[in-house]
Amino acid sequence: MLTYELDRTNTLPLYDQLYRHIRADIECGALASGARLPSKRMLARHLGVSRITVEGAFAQLAAEGYVTAEERKGHFVAPFEGAAAAPGTPRNRTPAAPGSIRSKGFSLCPAPSGPAEPDETPAASAPDAPLAPDPLLADLTGATAPTGLFPYQHWARTLRAVLADGSEETLLSAAQPQGFLPLRRALAQHLRGFRGMDATPGQIVIGAGAQVLYQLIAQLLPPDACIALEDPGYPRLARIYGSLGVRTCAVPPLTDAHAFEQLRATDATAVHCMPSHHFPTGATMPAPVRSLLITWAQAAPGRFVIEDDYDCEFRMQGKAIPPLAARNQDQIIYLNTFTKSLGAAFRIGYMVLPPALAERFRTHLGFYSCTVGGMDQATLCRFMETGAYERHCNRLRTHYRRVSRQLAQALEEAIRPHGGSLANVGAGLHFTMHLPHMRTECAQAAFLEELANAGVRMNPLSAYRRTLPSDDAGMFLVSFSSVDEPAIPLIANTLRMCIKPSPEPR
Amino acid sequence: MLTYELDRTNTLPLYDQLYRHIRADIECGALASGARLPSKRMLARHLGVSRITVEGAFAQLAAEGYVTAEERKGHFVAPFEGAAAAPGTPRNRTPAAPGSIRSKGFSLCPAPSGPAEPDETPAASAPDAPLAPDPLLADLTGATAPTGLFPYQHWARTLRAVLADGSEETLLSAAQPQGFLPLRRALAQHLRGFRGMDATPGQIVIGAGAQVLYQLIAQLLPPDACIALEDPGYPRLARIYGSLGVRTCAVPPLTDAHAFEQLRATDATAVHCMPSHHFPTGATMPAPVRSLLITWAQAAPGRFVIEDDYDCEFRMQGKAIPPLAARNQDQIIYLNTFTKSLGAAFRIGYMVLPPALAERFRTHLGFYSCTVGGMDQATLCRFMETGAYERHCNRLRTHYRRVSRQLAQALEEAIRPHGGSLANVGAGLHFTMHLPHMRTECAQAAFLEELANAGVRMNPLSAYRRTLPSDDAGMFLVSFSSVDEPAIPLIANTLRMCIKPSPEPR
Repeated sequence: MLTYELDRTNTLPLYDQLYRHIRADIECGALASGARLPSKRMLARHLGVSRITVEGAFAQLAAEGYVTAEERKGHFVAPFEGAAAAPGTPRNRTPAAPGSIRSKGFSLCPAPSGPAEPDETPAASAPDAPLAPDPLLADLTGATAPTGLFPYQHWARTLRAVLADGSEETLLSAAQPQGFLPLRRALAQHLRGFRGMDATPGQIVIGAGAQVLYQLIAQLLPPDACIALEDPGYPRLARIYGSLGVRTCAVPPLTDAHAFEQLRATDATAVHCMPSHHFPTGATMPAPVRSLLITWAQAAPGRFVIEDDYDCEFRMQGKAIPPLAARNQDQIIYLNTFTKSLGAAFRIGYMVLPPALAERFRTHLGFYSCTVGGMDQATLCRFMETGAYERHCNRLRTHYRRVSRQLAQALEEAIRPHGGSLANVGAGLHFTMHLPHMRTECAQAAFLEELANAGVRMNPLSAYRRTLPSDDAGMFLVSFSSVDEPAIPLIANTLRMCIKPSPEPR
Repeated sequence: MLTYELDRTNTLPLYDQLYRHIRADIECGALASGARLPSKRMLARHLGVSRITVEGAFAQLAAEGYVTAEERKGHFVAPFEGAAAAPGTPRNRTPAAPGSIRSKGFSLCPAPSGPAEPDETPAASAPDAPLAPDPLLADLTGATAPTGLFPYQHWARTLRAVLADGSEETLLSAAQPQGFLPLRRALAQHLRGFRGMDATPGQIVIGAGAQVLYQLIAQLLPPDACIALEDPGYPRLARIYGSLGVRTCAVPPLTDAHAFEQLRATDATAVHCMPSHHFPTGATMPAPVRSLLITWAQAAPGRFVIEDDYDCEFRMQGKAIPPLAARNQDQIIYLNTFTKSLGAAFRIGYMVLPPALAERFRTHLGFYSCTVGGMDQATLCRFMETGAYERHCNRLRTHYRRVSRQLAQALEEAIRPHGGSLANVGAGLHFTMHLPHMRTECAQAAFLEELANAGVRMNPLSAYRRTLPSDDAGMFLVSFSSVDEPAIPLIANTLRMCIKPSPEPR
């Protein structure tokens, strides 16, 4: 059996350490080509780590071609010829059928550090979280995208129609820095009808996902800008802004006046927040805080609120809440993506800039080409113009409303005996679960590991904390966008079983 | 007639000034909704500016919805309701046929500041250049993409097949930070066969065009990095790196040992260059300079060469020259895009990182999702796997070889009486033209304006200079990727006519 010393005090996650050990053994030949790796369960037990750790290492090795996975057989060391390895040599032991993508074993190669829904779901940033055990019953971390809901064939037909009707010139005009003008018009109309916003196409910038837009925002703000980020929040935000050299500071989620006071105490010139549906707490920013925030932004020149309108399409109960950008155009940078509605296979997002920043974009960043391909933009444009997008969103909302209701009901029954409760159900594609008897990180971790071994992946809210201390013991994120309806009773049952070592149920 | 004072000493280009004047008049109501603007020719004469200037202003106004263009009728002020303008209100006077993209008049809205081929062709950065006169006979600036050469219907069929065969899971795996693994495998194989490179899929990072990759490179290099940029060169490079806070310095194109000495004299830690086919000079880096450059990169830790393998697919004569990255893996960041081969409607590029930087990418930037959509990646992958991509490139090369030869021959005949000559024909999709009697910028500008009025757009080499003085009087760029074969005799004839005010033909 492979034996390695893994160091829990190391800053590298355990799975990464294990991956490096095995990779080194493959590279030096200690693990020969064709050798079968031990099963994940056996190796995990042998090394005293969780199976998720081993899975993480194996998935990384598979993603880089060091090992190949064969269904129901295990993992095998791929042919490896050292640094001079022929890159064209297929490393699959069984050659893939030509043209078949499915045969490439992708279910075994999840994004090594990227989640399935990369823009909105930070779950994968939590160490050891992103890798799915098999069999996976449900992934409640949000790292897995909903499947089978997007009308791909309809999309492909629309694309064909766009190609047949449009000229290449049309497609090329999509490379305009702000994106394809007809799509920006369709977005402006959508925002007016759906979010009550008065945006002009000239304020809209289309980009290949939220991360690209964050990068543009970082270049639009002055060099001495400091962006306040909600903590807990979307962990990659701090890494992205940090990687671009933008100073950030942490504030609690802006869900009450107290949190707002903490924002005022910082020297932040901008704040990145999610008023419709905060990630991960699920809270909605109350009206008084919205007013305070707008007043704050107006109080000094050059202050901006970056309104990440995460998940706004999927409010399932109550009235839709207008975004800040519907009340103020001059200080709010509005941002949204199609990741939740079209799926993460699309990299399309957009932002609405205040007129002054839109002008600055044209003068200072107008040399950039739009990062979304012309065909995708033209196809999405027609999807919106013909109403297909709205119909798709309505279908999705109906589906998610049903899943949300059923899951919440089943989970509530399971956790009620332990004094547990759910919060923020119906505000979007996730809610939170509180298990008050889980007072220590250790109890949480043991519970989550047991849950994961039984096929249900879930993250504690604390996984989304960065620097601020927070009173979130026993709080968990329940993100249900990938939950299959028939699995709901099983999920609840699994939870019921794993939750049982409650020392003193109330 | 509209009368505005345009200031030639202003840093704003004339077209931008004119655009702002007209916009202000529309916004204040001085130009009422529905009013017809004067014809471009009339207004140009009235204001004493070139028609291209007026076209630039009109195109910008149209792109932002202030005016609408009606074929053979002219430009009309769109309904404008001030700042509170309803964004959903269609500003087209004639409503577009539903679903019809062509009816939106896109030929009147070229990218306001972005060219048609945004990644490789900096022509649009030259003031007043990007906007096409009508009728346009030929655009030799490179700002217009080749049309009609890409097999869009084949692409659409392939996409359908990918969607039918693959799972959504497959598409989602494309969000991995470095991109879809099967596509990276196909790219590695392509690079091995076509460029003699030994790259592994783990070194490859896919991104939505070269500009996205530059942004990633900027984040991979240490904060105190200084990138040497060739001057003349691709003007947007300095703006992109500058906008990301990366220090740059200028060196002459690295085509001789003298230029290399100037690189050595800087404190640059990296150099961004185009060894296969330099833009805009068309020169190829000679073997001795290649060796010097690799030695330079190896001489100190943390030095890198960013090898922009611009245009390498379209070398039309002589042996293909292996890239620097085929000789050295540790210091060369290799970069290429599909913009020239698939067209600018695609936003797909890739880079091959040295192993150490690939590791750094995974640890420091692994939180990014790939910026290219899963469907595009999976479709391109199959295009490459089935050989369709190679066949397409071969067809393109045959086409371009013919255009290159015919155009060069026709131009040579036209310029020979004036002592003119061409250089670097056959190295790629552009070459240079030297007209020795055009010794002043003024003579150049008059010649180019006359040429543009006759329907041929061309840029002087000096348009691509940034800071270094350069001896390029009378040098012009001839980029022929969008030239129609039947137009070649007309182009040569137009040139012959406009060139005639030669004071003393040799």
